[in-house]
Amino acid sequence: MKSFYVLTLFPEMIEQTLSYSITGRAINDGLINVEAVNIRDFTKDKHRHVDDYPYGGGAGMVMQPQPIYDAYKSIGERAEGSRVLYMSPQGRTFDQSMAEELSKEDSIVILCGHYEGVDERVIEEIVTDEVSIGDFVLTGGELAAVTIIDAVSRLVPGVLNKEESHENESFSDGLLEYPQYTRPPEFMGRQVPDILLSGHHANIDKWRREQSIIRTYDKRPDLLEKAELTDKEKKFVQQLKNKER
Amino acid sequence: MKSFYVLTLFPEMIEQTLSYSITGRAINDGLINVEAVNIRDFTKDKHRHVDDYPYGGGAGMVMQPQPIYDAYKSIGERAEGSRVLYMSPQGRTFDQSMAEELSKEDSIVILCGHYEGVDERVIEEIVTDEVSIGDFVLTGGELAAVTIIDAVSRLVPGVLNKEESHENESFSDGLLEYPQYTRPPEFMGRQVPDILLSGHHANIDKWRREQSIIRTYDKRPDLLEKAELTDKEKKFVQQLKNKER
Repeated sequence: MKSFYVLTLFPEMIEQTLSYSITGRAINDGLINVEAVNIRDFTKDKHRHVDDYPYGGGAGMVMQPQPIYDAYKSIGERAEGSRVLYMSPQGRTFDQSMAEELSKEDSIVILCGHYEGVDERVIEEIVTDEVSIGDFVLTGGELAAVTIIDAVSRLVPGVLNKEESHENESFSDGLLEYPQYTRPPEFMGRQVPDILLSGHHANIDKWRREQSIIRTYDKRPDLLEKAELTDKEKKFVQQLKNKER
Repeated sequence: MKSFYVLTLFPEMIEQTLSYSITGRAINDGLINVEAVNIRDFTKDKHRHVDDYPYGGGAGMVMQPQPIYDAYKSIGERAEGSRVLYMSPQGRTFDQSMAEELSKEDSIVILCGHYEGVDERVIEEIVTDEVSIGDFVLTGGELAAVTIIDAVSRLVPGVLNKEESHENESFSDGLLEYPQYTRPPEFMGRQVPDILLSGHHANIDKWRREQSIIRTYDKRPDLLEKAELTDKEKKFVQQLKNKER
């Protein structure tokens, strides 16, 4: 079983958010384990504060090192040797290859910051990876943490069932997905493409692959550089370029 | 007040996740309004299914167009003219400038997909923007939706209080944040940098700005290209480069 330990000021938010859908089922089935550790339980302040003014002045409050460190230590041996991720806009940008890398770890510790930030010394002391989910600012690290737990969990064997298979999805072959259609055959005057109703599987596969390439070319040309394409497909991309669509 | 309408199979997940911390307070204070519309309430299937097999075959199920369309229509006039975001790895990558752009809208509709995807025709019919929060795959669009709501909400005037000000944060000036320290002055043998205890504000500001530049240079050199730097600071960057640190 893969374990996630989350150091947070909002443990219920972590637990509730992951209790739905596929992650909820994975937790119930014992395939993953999520423990949210409340940093506030480790403050020694009589008012239960976990933050204080920044040295050197400035707006905002900074999370103190001691409650975070003690919360981390409370996990004990179970997290020994585990990578400790700190959710921060400064970090390495999370992507599917990092999700795959993390899916191979037995356990992961995730530290969620709040306020203006976290005292630098506790980051130096316990954190192994600073990780960002994108170039935007959130009110806290919790949403970034559950996003990472979700993306990593679905790569754990058994978490996705056959119908949720991740074989044909975006990024798995470096291309965006082809368009999908289901019943009814006509919706708001829009028809399902004839080819999909033809029953000719080789042609359908070819059409879908082309659609994937066209979409990737239109929406994310940067991905095409790294995608695995046959020589014929590379020619097709060149044709798209020549058309200056 | 800014309104977010979320079309989803997991309305409680949306509402609970946003009920904490700063977004929770903003909802209670009437600064933002989040309505999660359950797509399943609009199925006409007697088993309440909202998905079906893909035309043309393949693994996974596809969300049908009709329940999504009817869920969208149920919002009625309140969402008329609003942008409709579809959370998809195919979309434009969400970032802080898009958060700022969206913070100026009165209301936003967000469609969360599940399973293998959503029937292409309902995307063509109602969606104005396909948006991705990053190059990774999630079990559904819900976490992406709450991430966007969180990032946009905190830019709504009044949502952040003075202590949470977003003046000195990452990306606001195109640089990463400087390190932060708070009490105690010594933690695990690590000292707060002397400069921060000096009381000399001009020197502190200079040190912090340098730290921001050094960190950005070390961790996200791509951001330096677009950052607003003085001529002196550009020279400082050049010195960092010359050192080949």
